[in-house]
Amino acid sequence: MLPKITLYYDVISPYSWIAFETLLRYQKKEYFDLILKPIFLGGVMKETSNRPPAMVPAKGRYMEKDLDMMSRYYGMKLVQPKDFFDTAITKGTLNAVRFLAAIEKEDSKYLVPASREFWKRLWLRQESAHEESDFLEVGDKIGLKKESIDGVLKKMSSPSIKDVIKNNTAEAIADGAFGAPWIKVEKANGERHSFFGSDRMPQICFFIEKPFLGPLIEEECRSKI
Amino acid sequence: MLPKITLYYDVISPYSWIAFETLLRYQKKEYFDLILKPIFLGGVMKETSNRPPAMVPAKGRYMEKDLDMMSRYYGMKLVQPKDFFDTAITKGTLNAVRFLAAIEKEDSKYLVPASREFWKRLWLRQESAHEESDFLEVGDKIGLKKESIDGVLKKMSSPSIKDVIKNNTAEAIADGAFGAPWIKVEKANGERHSFFGSDRMPQICFFIEKPFLGPLIEEECRSKI
Repeated sequence: MLPKITLYYDVISPYSWIAFETLLRYQKKEYFDLILKPIFLGGVMKETSNRPPAMVPAKGRYMEKDLDMMSRYYGMKLVQPKDFFDTAITKGTLNAVRFLAAIEKEDSKYLVPASREFWKRLWLRQESAHEESDFLEVGDKIGLKKESIDGVLKKMSSPSIKDVIKNNTAEAIADGAFGAPWIKVEKANGERHSFFGSDRMPQICFFIEKPFLGPLIEEECRSKI
Repeated sequence: MLPKITLYYDVISPYSWIAFETLLRYQKKEYFDLILKPIFLGGVMKETSNRPPAMVPAKGRYMEKDLDMMSRYYGMKLVQPKDFFDTAITKGTLNAVRFLAAIEKEDSKYLVPASREFWKRLWLRQESAHEESDFLEVGDKIGLKKESIDGVLKKMSSPSIKDVIKNNTAEAIADGAFGAPWIKVEKANGERHSFFGSDRMPQICFFIEKPFLGPLIEEECRSKI
Protein backbone atom coordinates (compact mmCIF):
# COMPACT_ATOMS: atom_id res chain seq x y z
CA MET A 1 0.00 0.00 0.00
CA LEU A 2 1.31 3.44 -0.94
CA PRO A 3 1.50 6.26 1.59
CA LYS A 4 -1.42 8.68 1.39
CA ILE A 5 -0.77 12.39 1.01
CA THR A 6 -3.52 14.97 1.40
CA LEU A 7 -2.81 18.46 0.09
CA TYR A 8 -4.98 21.20 1.59
CA TYR A 9 -4.75 24.26 -0.64
CA ASP A 10 -6.30 27.55 -1.63
CA VAL A 11 -5.67 29.13 -5.03
CA ILE A 12 -4.84 32.45 -3.33
CA SER A 13 -1.61 30.85 -2.09
CA PRO A 14 1.27 30.73 -4.59
CA TYR A 15 3.21 28.33 -2.37
CA SER A 16 0.19 26.03 -2.56
CA TRP A 17 0.59 26.07 -6.33
CA ILE A 18 4.24 25.05 -6.01
CA ALA A 19 3.32 22.22 -3.61
CA PHE A 20 0.48 21.14 -5.93
CA GLU A 21 2.71 20.84 -9.00
CA THR A 22 5.56 19.24 -7.04
CA LEU A 23 3.29 16.63 -5.47
CA LEU A 24 1.67 15.88 -8.85
CA ARG A 25 5.14 15.32 -10.33
CA TYR A 26 6.18 12.98 -7.51
CA GLN A 27 2.84 11.19 -7.69
CA LYS A 28 3.76 10.09 -11.24
CA LYS A 29 6.74 8.25 -9.71
CA GLU A 30 4.22 6.23 -7.66
CA TYR A 31 5.58 7.61 -4.43
CA PHE A 32 2.10 8.01 -2.89
CA ASP A 33 -1.62 8.38 -3.50
CA LEU A 34 -2.48 12.06 -3.66
CA ILE A 35 -5.73 13.52 -2.38
CA LEU A 36 -6.47 17.15 -3.21
CA LYS A 37 -8.65 19.16 -0.84
CA PRO A 38 -9.44 22.79 -1.59
CA ILE A 39 -9.88 24.87 1.56
CA PHE A 40 -10.63 28.52 2.32
CA LEU A 41 -7.34 29.96 3.58
CA GLY A 42 -9.05 33.09 4.93
CA GLY A 43 -10.96 30.83 7.32
CA VAL A 44 -7.78 29.10 8.49
CA MET A 45 -6.02 32.42 9.12
CA LYS A 46 -8.99 33.79 11.06
CA GLU A 47 -9.50 30.65 13.12
CA THR A 48 -5.82 30.42 14.12
CA SER A 49 -5.24 34.21 14.53
CA ASN A 50 -2.49 34.02 11.93
CA ARG A 51 -1.60 36.85 9.58
CA PRO A 52 -0.66 36.54 5.92
CA PRO A 53 3.09 37.00 5.35
CA ALA A 54 2.49 40.10 3.21
CA MET A 55 1.26 41.97 6.34
CA VAL A 56 4.89 42.27 7.50
CA PRO A 57 6.41 44.58 4.84
CA ALA A 58 9.84 42.87 4.89
CA LYS A 59 8.10 39.49 4.41
CA GLY A 60 6.15 40.89 1.48
CA ARG A 61 9.36 42.11 -0.16
CA TYR A 62 11.05 38.76 0.51
CA MET A 63 8.11 36.81 -0.90
CA GLU A 64 8.40 38.54 -4.25
CA LYS A 65 12.09 37.65 -4.59
CA ASP A 66 11.54 34.19 -3.13
CA LEU A 67 8.77 33.39 -5.60
CA ASP A 68 11.10 34.38 -8.40
CA MET A 69 13.79 31.99 -7.08
CA MET A 70 11.20 29.23 -6.59
CA SER A 71 9.90 29.82 -10.16
CA ARG A 72 13.37 29.17 -11.50
CA TYR A 73 13.96 26.15 -9.27
CA TYR A 74 10.64 24.49 -10.13
CA GLY A 75 10.51 25.55 -13.78
CA MET A 76 7.21 27.35 -13.18
CA LYS A 77 6.35 30.96 -13.74
CA LEU A 78 4.82 33.06 -10.99
CA VAL A 79 3.80 36.69 -11.28
CA GLN A 80 2.50 38.61 -8.26
CA PRO A 81 -1.08 39.98 -8.66
CA LYS A 82 -1.03 43.75 -9.28
CA ASP A 83 -2.93 44.55 -6.11
CA PHE A 84 -2.46 41.55 -3.89
CA PHE A 85 -4.38 42.97 -0.93
CA ASP A 86 -7.42 43.71 -3.08
CA THR A 87 -7.21 40.28 -4.73
CA ALA A 88 -6.71 38.35 -1.51
CA ILE A 89 -8.80 40.23 1.00
CA THR A 90 -11.44 42.31 -0.80
CA LYS A 91 -12.27 39.91 -3.61
CA GLY A 92 -11.10 36.73 -1.95
CA THR A 93 -11.15 33.15 -3.17
CA LEU A 94 -14.08 31.65 -1.27
CA ASN A 95 -16.11 31.43 -4.48
CA ALA A 96 -13.15 30.07 -6.43
CA VAL A 97 -12.63 27.17 -4.01
CA ARG A 98 -16.39 26.52 -3.94
CA PHE A 99 -16.29 26.37 -7.74
CA LEU A 100 -13.50 23.79 -7.41
CA ALA A 101 -15.56 21.72 -4.98
CA ALA A 102 -18.50 21.82 -7.40
CA ILE A 103 -16.24 20.89 -10.33
CA GLU A 104 -14.95 17.90 -8.42
CA LYS A 105 -18.51 16.75 -7.73
CA GLU A 106 -19.38 17.18 -11.43
CA ASP A 107 -16.36 15.12 -12.57
CA SER A 108 -13.30 14.68 -10.39
CA LYS A 109 -10.92 14.62 -13.36
CA TYR A 110 -11.46 18.37 -13.77
CA LEU A 111 -10.18 19.30 -10.32
CA VAL A 112 -6.48 19.41 -11.28
CA PRO A 113 -6.83 21.49 -14.48
CA ALA A 114 -9.39 23.83 -12.89
CA SER A 115 -7.19 24.46 -9.83
CA ARG A 116 -4.20 25.14 -12.07
CA GLU A 117 -6.29 27.48 -14.22
CA PHE A 118 -7.21 29.57 -11.16
CA TRP A 119 -3.54 29.84 -10.16
CA LYS A 120 -2.66 30.87 -13.70
CA ARG A 121 -5.30 33.60 -13.57
CA LEU A 122 -4.16 34.91 -10.17
CA TRP A 123 -0.44 34.15 -10.11
CA LEU A 124 0.58 34.35 -13.74
CA ARG A 125 -1.78 36.46 -15.86
CA GLN A 126 -2.92 38.93 -13.16
CA GLU A 127 -6.56 38.20 -13.96
CA SER A 128 -9.44 38.15 -11.51
CA ALA A 129 -10.94 34.93 -10.16
CA HIS A 130 -14.04 35.87 -8.26
CA GLU A 131 -16.76 36.71 -10.80
CA GLU A 132 -19.13 34.44 -12.66
CA SER A 133 -17.48 35.40 -15.95
CA ASP A 134 -14.14 34.25 -14.51
CA PHE A 135 -15.61 30.87 -13.65
CA LEU A 136 -17.11 30.58 -17.14
CA GLU A 137 -13.64 31.19 -18.59
CA VAL A 138 -12.03 28.62 -16.30
CA GLY A 139 -14.65 26.02 -17.27
CA ASP A 140 -14.15 26.81 -20.94
CA LYS A 141 -10.33 26.66 -20.73
CA ILE A 142 -10.33 23.19 -19.21
CA GLY A 143 -12.73 21.91 -21.87
CA LEU A 144 -15.89 21.60 -19.81
CA LYS A 145 -19.07 21.70 -21.91
CA LYS A 146 -21.37 24.72 -21.59
CA GLU A 147 -24.16 22.74 -19.88
CA SER A 148 -21.71 21.25 -17.38
CA ILE A 149 -20.37 24.71 -16.53
CA ASP A 150 -23.92 25.95 -15.97
CA GLY A 151 -24.56 23.00 -13.68
CA VAL A 152 -21.36 23.68 -11.73
CA LEU A 153 -22.21 27.38 -11.37
CA LYS A 154 -25.64 26.47 -10.00
CA LYS A 155 -24.16 23.86 -7.66
CA MET A 156 -21.39 26.02 -6.22
CA SER A 157 -23.59 28.01 -3.86
CA SER A 158 -25.59 24.98 -2.68
CA PRO A 159 -25.34 24.02 1.01
CA SER A 160 -23.69 20.71 0.19
CA ILE A 161 -20.84 22.38 -1.75
CA LYS A 162 -20.43 25.09 0.89
CA ASP A 163 -20.13 22.22 3.36
CA VAL A 164 -17.34 20.56 1.36
CA ILE A 165 -15.16 23.69 1.74
CA LYS A 166 -16.25 24.20 5.34
CA ASN A 167 -15.40 20.58 6.20
CA ASN A 168 -12.09 20.52 4.32
CA THR A 169 -11.08 23.73 6.08
CA ALA A 170 -12.13 22.43 9.50
CA GLU A 171 -10.28 19.16 8.81
CA ALA A 172 -7.06 21.04 8.00
CA ILE A 173 -7.37 23.20 11.14
CA ALA A 174 -8.05 20.11 13.28
CA ASP A 175 -4.88 18.58 11.81
CA GLY A 176 -2.91 21.64 12.94
CA ALA A 177 -2.96 23.91 9.87
CA PHE A 178 -2.38 27.65 10.32
CA GLY A 179 -1.70 28.43 6.67
CA ALA A 180 -1.40 26.81 3.23
CA PRO A 181 -0.19 24.59 1.74
CA TRP A 182 -0.80 22.06 4.50
CA ILE A 183 0.40 18.56 3.61
CA LYS A 184 -0.76 15.55 5.63
CA VAL A 185 1.30 12.41 5.09
CA GLU A 186 0.01 9.02 6.28
CA LYS A 187 2.18 5.96 5.91
CA ALA A 188 0.93 2.41 5.47
CA ASN A 189 2.30 1.53 8.93
CA GLY A 190 0.09 4.17 10.52
CA GLU A 191 2.81 6.76 11.10
CA ARG A 192 1.75 10.27 10.15
CA HIS A 193 3.21 13.73 9.99
CA SER A 194 1.92 17.00 8.60
CA PHE A 195 4.09 19.55 6.83
CA PHE A 196 3.54 23.27 6.30
CA GLY A 197 4.84 24.97 3.19
CA SER A 198 6.07 24.12 -0.26
CA ASP A 199 9.71 23.47 0.56
CA ARG A 200 9.55 20.27 2.58
CA MET A 201 9.72 17.75 -0.26
CA PRO A 202 13.17 16.48 0.89
CA GLN A 203 11.75 15.75 4.35
CA ILE A 204 8.54 14.26 2.94
CA CYS A 205 10.64 11.86 0.82
CA PHE A 206 12.77 11.06 3.87
CA PHE A 207 9.62 10.32 5.89
CA ILE A 208 8.14 7.98 3.25
CA GLU A 209 11.58 6.44 2.68
CA LYS A 210 11.98 7.40 -0.98
CA PRO A 211 14.83 9.30 -2.66
CA PHE A 212 14.36 13.04 -3.10
CA LEU A 213 14.61 13.70 -6.83
CA GLY A 214 14.77 17.48 -6.91
CA PRO A 215 12.21 19.73 -8.59
CA LEU A 216 11.58 17.28 -11.46
CA ILE A 217 11.52 20.08 -14.02
CA GLU A 218 11.76 17.56 -16.87
CA GLU A 219 8.30 16.23 -15.87
CA GLU A 220 7.06 19.79 -16.09
CA CYS A 221 8.40 20.15 -19.60
CA ARG A 222 7.00 16.82 -20.73
CA SER A 223 3.55 17.59 -19.43
CA LYS A 224 3.68 21.23 -20.60
CA ILE A 225 1.94 22.51 -17.52
CA MET B 1 36.51 31.95 -6.74
CA LEU B 2 33.95 30.22 -4.52
CA PRO B 3 30.55 31.76 -3.83
CA LYS B 4 30.35 33.57 -0.49
CA ILE B 5 27.61 32.66 1.98
CA THR B 6 26.90 34.76 5.06
CA LEU B 7 24.78 33.16 7.77
CA TYR B 8 23.10 35.62 10.14
CA TYR B 9 22.01 33.74 13.23
CA ASP B 10 20.95 33.98 16.85
CA VAL B 11 21.32 31.06 19.26
CA ILE B 12 17.70 31.53 20.36
CA SER B 13 16.62 30.20 16.96
CA PRO B 14 16.63 26.40 16.55
CA TYR B 15 16.23 26.72 12.78
CA SER B 16 19.41 28.82 12.83
CA TRP B 17 21.16 25.85 14.44
CA ILE B 18 19.96 23.56 11.65
CA ALA B 19 21.14 26.05 8.99
CA PHE B 20 24.46 26.46 10.82
CA GLU B 21 25.23 22.72 10.91
CA THR B 22 23.97 22.18 7.35
CA LEU B 23 26.07 25.02 5.94
CA LEU B 24 29.14 23.81 7.86
CA ARG B 25 28.65 20.34 6.35
CA TYR B 26 28.31 21.71 2.82
CA GLN B 27 31.28 24.03 3.36
CA LYS B 28 33.47 20.91 3.80
CA LYS B 29 32.55 19.98 0.20
CA GLU B 30 34.11 23.29 -0.88
CA TYR B 31 30.78 24.56 -2.13
CA PHE B 32 31.37 28.09 -0.77
CA ASP B 33 33.21 30.26 1.72
CA LEU B 34 31.10 30.59 4.85
CA ILE B 35 30.97 33.72 6.98
CA LEU B 36 29.18 33.48 10.33
CA LYS B 37 27.58 36.60 11.77
CA PRO B 38 25.78 36.45 15.11
CA ILE B 39 22.87 38.89 15.31
CA PHE B 40 20.26 39.80 17.92
CA LEU B 41 17.02 38.30 16.62
CA GLY B 42 14.92 40.31 19.07
CA GLY B 43 16.17 43.46 17.33
CA VAL B 44 15.26 42.10 13.90
CA MET B 45 11.75 41.16 15.04
CA LYS B 46 11.19 44.57 16.62
CA GLU B 47 12.57 46.52 13.68
CA THR B 48 10.43 44.64 11.13
CA SER B 49 7.28 44.35 13.31
CA ASN B 50 7.47 40.59 12.98
CA ARG B 51 6.27 38.17 15.65
CA PRO B 52 7.97 34.93 16.68
CA PRO B 53 6.13 31.85 15.31
CA ALA B 54 5.36 30.62 18.82
CA MET B 55 3.00 33.61 19.29
CA VAL B 56 0.43 31.86 17.07
CA PRO B 57 -0.53 28.81 19.17
CA ALA B 58 -1.00 26.51 16.15
CA LYS B 59 2.46 27.54 14.88
CA GLY B 60 3.96 26.79 18.29
CA ARG B 61 2.43 23.31 18.26
CA TYR B 62 3.62 22.73 14.70
CA MET B 63 7.14 23.91 15.53
CA GLU B 64 7.54 21.26 18.19
CA LYS B 65 6.58 18.46 15.79
CA ASP B 66 8.51 20.02 12.95
CA LEU B 67 11.70 20.27 15.00
CA ASP B 68 11.35 16.60 15.81
CA MET B 69 11.07 15.75 12.10
CA MET B 70 13.99 18.05 11.25
CA SER B 71 16.06 16.43 14.04
CA ARG B 72 15.56 13.05 12.39
CA TYR B 73 16.24 14.36 8.89
CA TYR B 74 19.45 16.18 9.85
CA GLY B 75 20.67 13.63 12.42
CA MET B 76 20.68 16.29 15.13
CA LYS B 77 18.83 16.34 18.41
CA LEU B 78 16.64 19.27 19.39
CA VAL B 79 14.73 19.60 22.63
CA GLN B 80 12.43 22.58 23.24
CA PRO B 81 13.38 24.75 26.28
CA LYS B 82 11.02 24.11 29.20
CA ASP B 83 9.73 27.66 29.26
CA PHE B 84 10.43 29.04 25.82
CA PHE B 85 8.79 32.41 26.41
CA ASP B 86 10.85 33.00 29.55
CA THR B 87 14.04 31.85 27.82
CA ALA B 88 13.48 33.86 24.66
CA ILE B 89 11.82 37.03 25.87
CA THR B 90 12.56 37.52 29.58
CA LYS B 91 16.12 36.23 29.66
CA GLY B 92 16.95 36.73 26.00
CA THR B 93 20.13 36.06 24.07
CA LEU B 94 21.59 39.53 23.64
CA ASN B 95 24.40 38.73 26.06
CA ALA B 96 24.96 35.32 24.48
CA VAL B 97 25.48 36.80 21.01
CA ARG B 98 27.71 39.54 22.49
CA PHE B 99 29.75 36.78 24.14
CA LEU B 100 30.06 35.17 20.69
CA ALA B 101 31.22 38.43 19.13
CA ALA B 102 33.82 38.79 21.89
CA ILE B 103 34.94 35.18 21.46
CA GLU B 104 35.42 35.76 17.74
CA LYS B 105 37.58 38.82 18.46
CA GLU B 106 39.62 36.81 20.99
CA ASP B 107 40.26 33.97 18.51
CA SER B 108 37.95 33.35 15.56
CA LYS B 109 38.42 29.58 15.68
CA TYR B 110 36.26 29.49 18.83
CA LEU B 111 33.16 30.98 17.16
CA VAL B 112 31.83 27.68 15.78
CA PRO B 113 32.22 25.56 18.95
CA ALA B 114 30.94 28.39 21.18
CA SER B 115 27.84 28.96 19.03
CA ARG B 116 27.12 25.22 19.02
CA GLU B 117 27.61 25.08 22.79
CA PHE B 118 24.96 27.81 23.28
CA TRP B 119 22.50 25.89 21.08
CA LYS B 120 23.20 22.73 23.03
CA ARG B 121 22.47 24.56 26.28
CA LEU B 122 19.23 26.10 25.00
CA TRP B 123 17.94 23.54 22.49
CA LEU B 124 19.23 20.25 23.83
CA ARG B 125 19.97 20.31 27.54
CA GLN B 126 17.38 22.92 28.62
CA GLU B 127 20.04 24.97 30.38
CA SER B 128 20.18 28.74 30.70
CA ALA B 129 22.43 30.89 28.54
CA HIS B 130 22.27 34.40 29.92
CA GLU B 131 24.30 34.47 33.16
CA GLU B 132 28.01 34.94 33.67
CA SER B 133 28.28 31.42 35.06
CA ASP B 134 26.72 30.12 31.79
CA PHE B 135 29.37 31.94 29.77
CA LEU B 136 32.11 30.55 32.00
CA GLU B 137 30.79 27.05 31.33
CA VAL B 138 30.64 27.64 27.57
CA GLY B 139 34.21 28.92 27.55
CA ASP B 140 35.37 25.96 29.61
CA LYS B 141 33.53 23.40 27.41
CA ILE B 142 35.18 24.63 24.24
CA GLY B 143 38.62 24.52 25.84
CA LEU B 144 39.26 28.22 26.29
CA LYS B 145 41.82 29.01 29.02
CA LYS B 146 40.63 30.71 32.19
CA GLU B 147 42.45 33.97 31.43
CA SER B 148 41.02 34.08 27.89
CA ILE B 149 37.49 33.56 29.26
CA ASP B 150 38.02 36.39 31.72
CA GLY B 151 39.19 38.60 28.86
CA VAL B 152 36.15 37.69 26.76
CA LEU B 153 33.79 38.38 29.67
CA LYS B 154 35.35 41.80 30.13
CA LYS B 155 35.24 42.53 26.41
CA MET B 156 31.63 41.47 25.80
CA SER B 157 30.08 44.62 27.25
CA SER B 158 32.52 47.00 25.59
CA PRO B 159 31.16 49.49 23.03
CA SER B 160 33.13 47.86 20.21
CA ILE B 161 31.60 44.41 20.84
CA LYS B 162 28.11 45.86 21.27
CA ASP B 163 28.70 47.53 17.92
CA VAL B 164 29.59 44.23 16.24
CA ILE B 165 26.15 42.81 17.14
CA LYS B 166 24.42 46.10 16.34
CA ASN B 167 26.11 46.27 12.94
CA ASN B 168 25.56 42.60 12.06
CA THR B 169 21.88 42.97 12.97
CA ALA B 170 21.51 46.20 10.96
CA GLU B 171 23.27 44.57 8.02
CA ALA B 172 20.85 41.62 8.05
CA ILE B 173 17.84 43.97 8.25
CA ALA B 174 19.21 46.10 5.41
CA ASP B 175 19.55 42.91 3.36
CA GLY B 176 15.84 42.16 3.96
CA ALA B 177 15.88 39.92 7.05
CA PHE B 178 12.73 39.67 9.18
CA GLY B 179 13.76 36.55 11.12
CA ALA B 180 16.56 34.00 11.43
CA PRO B 181 18.35 32.19 9.95
CA TRP B 182 18.98 34.69 7.18
CA ILE B 183 21.34 33.39 4.50
CA LYS B 184 22.96 35.77 2.01
CA VAL B 185 24.46 34.08 -1.03
CA GLU B 186 26.84 35.99 -3.32
CA LYS B 187 28.17 34.34 -6.45
CA ALA B 188 31.50 35.09 -8.09
CA ASN B 189 29.65 36.61 -11.08
CA GLY B 190 28.02 39.18 -8.81
CA GLU B 191 24.57 37.53 -8.68
CA ARG B 192 23.12 37.44 -5.17
CA HIS B 193 20.06 36.13 -3.42
CA SER B 194 19.09 35.90 0.23
CA PHE B 195 17.18 33.01 1.74
CA PHE B 196 15.12 32.85 4.90
CA GLY B 197 14.91 29.65 6.92
CA SER B 198 16.72 26.37 7.30
CA ASP B 199 14.99 24.42 4.55
CA ARG B 200 16.28 26.13 1.41
CA MET B 201 19.47 24.10 0.89
CA PRO B 202 18.13 22.55 -2.36
CA GLN B 203 17.50 26.03 -3.78
CA ILE B 204 20.83 27.37 -2.48
CA CYS B 205 22.61 24.50 -4.27
CA PHE B 206 20.57 25.20 -7.40
CA PHE B 207 21.54 28.88 -7.23
CA ILE B 208 25.27 28.16 -6.86
CA GLU B 209 25.03 25.39 -9.48
CA LYS B 210 26.06 22.49 -7.27
CA PRO B 211 24.24 19.20 -6.63
CA PHE B 212 22.07 19.04 -3.52
CA LEU B 213 23.43 16.20 -1.41
CA GLY B 214 20.73 15.86 1.23
CA PRO B 215 21.24 16.36 4.96
CA LEU B 216 24.79 14.90 4.91
CA ILE B 217 24.19 13.02 8.14
CA GLU B 218 27.33 10.97 7.61
CA GLU B 219 29.41 14.17 7.96
CA GLU B 220 27.64 14.75 11.24
CA CYS B 221 28.60 11.30 12.48
CA ARG B 222 32.20 11.63 11.36
CA SER B 223 32.67 14.95 13.10
CA LYS B 224 30.66 13.81 16.15
CA ILE B 225 29.02 17.19 16.50
